[in-house]
Amino acid sequence: MENEISNRLNALFHEMVDIRRFLHQYPELSHQEEHTPRYIANYHEQLGLDVRTNVGGRGVVATLTGAYPGKTIAVRADFDALPIQDEKDVPYKSTIPGVMHACGHDGHTALVLALAKALSERRSSLHGTVVFIHQHAEEVSPGGAKQMIDDGCLEGVDEIFGTHLWATEPLGKIQYKHGPFMAAADRFEIVIQGQGGHGAQPHVTKDAILIGSNVVQSLQHIVSRRLNPIQSAVISVASIEASNPFNAIADQVKMEGTVRTFDPDIQKDIKRVMDQTINGVCQSYGASYTFNYFDGHPAVVNDPSASDAVANAAKGIQEVQEVEYAEPQMGGEDFSYYVQAVPGTYFFTGAKPKDVTETIPHHHPKFDIDERSMLIASKTLARTVLQRTGTTQAEGFEHIK
Amino acid sequence: MENEISNRLNALFHEMVDIRRFLHQYPELSHQEEHTPRYIANYHEQLGLDVRTNVGGRGVVATLTGAYPGKTIAVRADFDALPIQDEKDVPYKSTIPGVMHACGHDGHTALVLALAKALSERRSSLHGTVVFIHQHAEEVSPGGAKQMIDDGCLEGVDEIFGTHLWATEPLGKIQYKHGPFMAAADRFEIVIQGQGGHGAQPHVTKDAILIGSNVVQSLQHIVSRRLNPIQSAVISVASIEASNPFNAIADQVKMEGTVRTFDPDIQKDIKRVMDQTINGVCQSYGASYTFNYFDGHPAVVNDPSASDAVANAAKGIQEVQEVEYAEPQMGGEDFSYYVQAVPGTYFFTGAKPKDVTETIPHHHPKFDIDERSMLIASKTLARTVLQRTGTTQAEGFEHIK
Amino acid sequence: MENEISNRLNALFHEMVDIRRFLHQYPELSHQEEHTPRYIANYHEQLGLDVRTNVGGRGVVATLTGAYPGKTIAVRADFDALPIQDEKDVPYKSTIPGVMHACGHDGHTALVLALAKALSERRSSLHGTVVFIHQHAEEVSPGGAKQMIDDGCLEGVDEIFGTHLWATEPLGKIQYKHGPFMAAADRFEIVIQGQGGHGAQPHVTKDAILIGSNVVQSLQHIVSRRLNPIQSAVISVASIEASNPFNAIADQVKMEGTVRTFDPDIQKDIKRVMDQTINGVCQSYGASYTFNYFDGHPAVVNDPSASDAVANAAKGIQEVQEVEYAEPQMGGEDFSYYVQAVPGTYFFTGAKPKDVTETIPHHHPKFDIDERSMLIASKTLARTVLQRTGTTQAEGFEHIK
Amino acid sequence: MENEISNRLNALFHEMVDIRRFLHQYPELSHQEEHTPRYIANYHEQLGLDVRTNVGGRGVVATLTGAYPGKTIAVRADFDALPIQDEKDVPYKSTIPGVMHACGHDGHTALVLALAKALSERRSSLHGTVVFIHQHAEEVSPGGAKQMIDDGCLEGVDEIFGTHLWATEPLGKIQYKHGPFMAAADRFEIVIQGQGGHGAQPHVTKDAILIGSNVVQSLQHIVSRRLNPIQSAVISVASIEASNPFNAIADQVKMEGTVRTFDPDIQKDIKRVMDQTINGVCQSYGASYTFNYFDGHPAVVNDPSASDAVANAAKGIQEVQEVEYAEPQMGGEDFSYYVQAVPGTYFFTGAKPKDVTETIPHHHPKFDIDERSMLIASKTLARTVLQRTGTTQAEGFEHIK
Repeated sequence: MENEISNRLNALFHEMVDIRRFLHQYPELSHQEEHTPRYIANYHEQLGLDVRTNVGGRGVVATLTGAYPGKTIAVRADFDALPIQDEKDVPYKSTIPGVMHACGHDGHTALVLALAKALSERRSSLHGTVVFIHQHAEEVSPGGAKQMIDDGCLEGVDEIFGTHLWATEPLGKIQYKHGPFMAAADRFEIVIQGQGGHGAQPHVTKDAILIGSNVVQSLQHIVSRRLNPIQSAVISVASIEASNPFNAIADQVKMEGTVRTFDPDIQKDIKRVMDQTINGVCQSYGASYTFNYFDGHPAVVNDPSASDAVANAAKGIQEVQEVEYAEPQMGGEDFSYYVQAVPGTYFFTGAKPKDVTETIPHHHPKFDIDERSMLIASKTLARTVLQRTGTTQAEGFEHIK
Repeated sequence: MENEISNRLNALFHEMVDIRRFLHQYPELSHQEEHTPRYIANYHEQLGLDVRTNVGGRGVVATLTGAYPGKTIAVRADFDALPIQDEKDVPYKSTIPGVMHACGHDGHTALVLALAKALSERRSSLHGTVVFIHQHAEEVSPGGAKQMIDDGCLEGVDEIFGTHLWATEPLGKIQYKHGPFMAAADRFEIVIQGQGGHGAQPHVTKDAILIGSNVVQSLQHIVSRRLNPIQSAVISVASIEASNPFNAIADQVKMEGTVRTFDPDIQKDIKRVMDQTINGVCQSYGASYTFNYFDGHPAVVNDPSASDAVANAAKGIQEVQEVEYAEPQMGGEDFSYYVQAVPGTYFFTGAKPKDVTETIPHHHPKFDIDERSMLIASKTLARTVLQRTGTTQAEGFEHIK
Repeated sequence: MENEISNRLNALFHEMVDIRRFLHQYPELSHQEEHTPRYIANYHEQLGLDVRTNVGGRGVVATLTGAYPGKTIAVRADFDALPIQDEKDVPYKSTIPGVMHACGHDGHTALVLALAKALSERRSSLHGTVVFIHQHAEEVSPGGAKQMIDDGCLEGVDEIFGTHLWATEPLGKIQYKHGPFMAAADRFEIVIQGQGGHGAQPHVTKDAILIGSNVVQSLQHIVSRRLNPIQSAVISVASIEASNPFNAIADQVKMEGTVRTFDPDIQKDIKRVMDQTINGVCQSYGASYTFNYFDGHPAVVNDPSASDAVANAAKGIQEVQEVEYAEPQMGGEDFSYYVQAVPGTYFFTGAKPKDVTETIPHHHPKFDIDERSMLIASKTLARTVLQRTGTTQAEGFEHIK
Repeated sequence: MENEISNRLNALFHEMVDIRRFLHQYPELSHQEEHTPRYIANYHEQLGLDVRTNVGGRGVVATLTGAYPGKTIAVRADFDALPIQDEKDVPYKSTIPGVMHACGHDGHTALVLALAKALSERRSSLHGTVVFIHQHAEEVSPGGAKQMIDDGCLEGVDEIFGTHLWATEPLGKIQYKHGPFMAAADRFEIVIQGQGGHGAQPHVTKDAILIGSNVVQSLQHIVSRRLNPIQSAVISVASIEASNPFNAIADQVKMEGTVRTFDPDIQKDIKRVMDQTINGVCQSYGASYTFNYFDGHPAVVNDPSASDAVANAAKGIQEVQEVEYAEPQMGGEDFSYYVQAVPGTYFFTGAKPKDVTETIPHHHPKFDIDERSMLIASKTLARTVLQRTGTTQAEGFEHIK
């Protein structure tokens, strides 16, 4: 059945492109999606799938039940867009001012819809169940993943798979990894409260800028000295502000930044040691502070077996030139919540547009993808799903030599 | 004649108060003074003095020529107000929203006008010449002093005197000092240009906040290690700013602050060493910077002989309880330009309001003075002027035993 | 044949223990080994192997040529001891004052000699060639590996294997890893030249301690901000020294430390950025410096295929409870030179003594091993060697189910 | 009588030189003086003065009682030498290896002995009493001053005077000052206790060198930000030490240094803020510390009236070209204890050798003085003593016009 599905996806490629370009013209911001989930729900309903809408807010879950018993495998695609003005010069350019599918979620949606069509047409041969999870609000925190899970989208699900079309890697490349793949991305705020005064009288003040700059310096020592060098973490102070007349001394300085980690223990340690560091520095000057730490998405931790399944599936696809065991990424993704709940894996599908001299990153006003990546991703997911539901095995052969 | 002038000033005290309160109700901002200089010019014209208006912009110079030959002595009073909302609850409260005589320049004007009246009435006994310099725009840089000097207000002047009614010192106290008395007050701007990026990818950025905070720390070493500990200087970074999303790394950070010094060589050294420091730190990271240093008023450097003359004059006044050889002040004052051009001295006249439990500093919305300080200041200036023009000596006795 | 060798090694276990304990009592320091290489050479000669002595100084190479054609596989064991006083209370305690086998090289030697005996007895069934490389001077830099390679010890060798008995991991555990496994371990010296003087006159000095402490702080920023957070590196300042009377200011401060990396590009970058950092800091103060960087052993980079071969071999051994894909280690090892020259892998064999409550690390005066680890290591190497020479395959079956 | 004493001192100049050169050849270290105090006591006994020896240890006190009633005025001269090898090439070079009068105390002794001779010869005209205090052990802390005071050397003394021959100021210059003249010179020790370990494993250590260098940096902020900029203080870390193998992380770092202040309140503040600073920094890392602060000599605080008396005395001496109101000196001197007990003043007598191109500082192996400075100092002290005992006034004229 793998070959048949593969051929069918080839035939559906033009439809994928049409869907993706349609969505690209009508992007919707996180937690404000209306037309997109309705479009998705309609599509699945026409395929005859069981469809639940408004899952965890604006999510859509469509369930395809195979003819034979087997595992329940979920495929997740996110569908929100970004507050960025589309600066591309293409016919399918965004029509919504200041909103743009600058991260490829339109493509994720399109490829998963086409996958649903191809699989639903072969329901009679399908073992197990396939659950298509279309998630709203991936770009923000808190996002849609947690909401949909809380609303039951993973009930009965044995395993979950998801991919990101990745515009900075070449077409034909699949990147997978066991364990931590994308980082936990937290936010923090620090406010140092010193005592202001006249610029000529430092001795009757507690110079908040001096204290704050000492904090910035001392925070460096956490990564350089207090983290196991084999482990990875980032602490970045992104903004600092204390505005005063030139002849004053600051009473307060505010800082904001991010922490990235892969390991919850390290995340917890860093939180603790940041507080210890800020506290010590402030005590040096008799100053006070507030330190607020906001947990963002946790790290995406891939199941090794599910990851290997994807890698093996990808190796059997003609358009795939390279299956790479990837380095972890310090970026974040709320797919993490799914793989906290059930085993699963997240992988990258190379989608770098051809004939571009310079790589344009995600979230860029000129972001675009090579749409053929959708076909590769859909085939990889198809082979994985058929394998993990038990369909492939039931047909008497394994897809991996 | 000293006693006569003193008695006459006693009689004029109520007029001083009236003038001061009138001006207090109609304060005018620096470089925007219109009514005040006109009022001053009218007053002097009615006394029959030679009056020049619009000196160096908005200044007024009135000249009283004595009957006998002698030295030419200038007395300076500034007359601008501040952009502060008057929050006092008094009948003479400012009527101009957001503008207030919160530094006592109204009093300076009143006491010098009364002094001019007293002296002009005794012109027939006066030796030498007295020049009354009423200066606009003392509160800002560039201010009125330099403009008025460039416009000739010190031509022919042998010596100059000025006082500040000082609301944080008790009534009856005169503070004088040889040499440096008030600091040079300069301003600087530093812009560190790093390279921005994503908060999770420090290695492809040059973190401007890290570099800037290192600069703040390293600038401390100038005062702590590179300044002769016997000397005084202040370097204060007053504001710092780099605003970015929490998950970014700053490309740029801007800082502004002040440097205070008494000695032009030290001022020059600090400027040079600040640049050396910022440059070294930026080189550590391969970053670039701009460093702009704006010379403010130079230090007020008092002539010892002129200072002693004031101290001696003050000692002969009944209302003066204490004549103190003062510590230098890190605050600035553009009286400095006058004493760069001719010998002279600046002194403080205690003016702390009675019955206040808490000392209210200058530039405060509730600032006020004990108006009797005007009388003390006018008498001190009167005795000084009579002495330094040669009038006292010509009368056959010295006022100091 | 695998089973036969395995059984034979079981029988040789007591001999391994005897050899190890004998060597343990007569340890020899790096580059001073005399008795140990003679002992090794004698042993191999009695087995009938081709033996070369004084290889690259004090190394011994013994070659066992099989009856059939096949690959040439090397096994390396180091044999030097450490300048540590043995504080154990055991019959086989070191008899040489201040010298001790505190890292397990005695065990390495014993297990490889027993392996040579077992394999040489089955030479008639052996395919290919086995080269036993007994290396002197592993504990120091420069060490014996490079010398022996330069002297031809790897001529004709297709692949090399080595293990470390690892006293902090439990018996029955094998740790392997693809790619970087042990770090490059470099040394650096920094001398800051300021200008000394009297402690009361900082302004006529360049305070070397202040500059040096700034360097220590700024070096932290390399790991925290200028290294890809996915990568690993350590920069440690180990010693700092500036000795002066209490009322002086230091003219000079000396620092020494280590850098650990896995990737030669990162190593090169760190070297460059350290110099940039020190240079910038020194320029801030107008000071000068010397920075000397001494490359130590490069990183041990394991060949994936060779590593998998070891893992597979270990999985087939009854005494092995766990085969772990390990984290890289920031420690160094000159096995790196062999795997720069030919493919190969280095792995750890758990050797933690039983019934110890507290883990005693390598290089500790009470260091010891569970000697049964020698048996496990010899079996793992045996199975690997038989597989990689081609012997196992030639016998018509694979050792992995 | 002033003129007669002056003339007599002129005649005694050769004797001063002889005494000074004799003492210069036989210098004795602090608290080890034997021959010197015996020499001094003999001299005074021959003059017929009341002599007390072993005062407070090794001090000598000689009392000259005038014929008429008057004030009791003390003159202090110190007589210990330094552990420095004399490198001068002169006939009167030190004969004691490694010991040298490198600070001029030989000259102090000689000029005070000659002064005693001159005054004792005129005892019949002398009013009041003159006490000659010859102090041992000025160069160390604790020194002789406190011991001698505790042993009663100031009993009955109304006022005390002392001078230092000052080799970096020109002959003919006298430097005096009201209030703080020489600094309090304290010593401190800081030991940071972190946790040591392997250089490759910072995360299981508390890097004492990192913490210590942070302390050095943060201590700078005390002088730069927490001291009134009008005030003077110095904090110098003179030595730092943590010696470890290059691949270790330091468990401990030791620092030693000095603090200089003029004002006991500032001294106390600095002690407190140093502890606050070190404590905060250590808390940042969870490290501990010990901070020991040893009060040295307090500041020398001159009485204004006594100081003016010296200035006036000096102005009447022909060889004096300049009487300068000096800047305070950050160096220390245990004369401070005398002027804590009774009013008095300490002044500098210019003693720079002629025809030297480069100024050689005190405590230098080539230190020397222009011996004519002894004559100037003795005359200045003579005129001061005659004035302050009441002798001059009794003779019916004042020496100052």
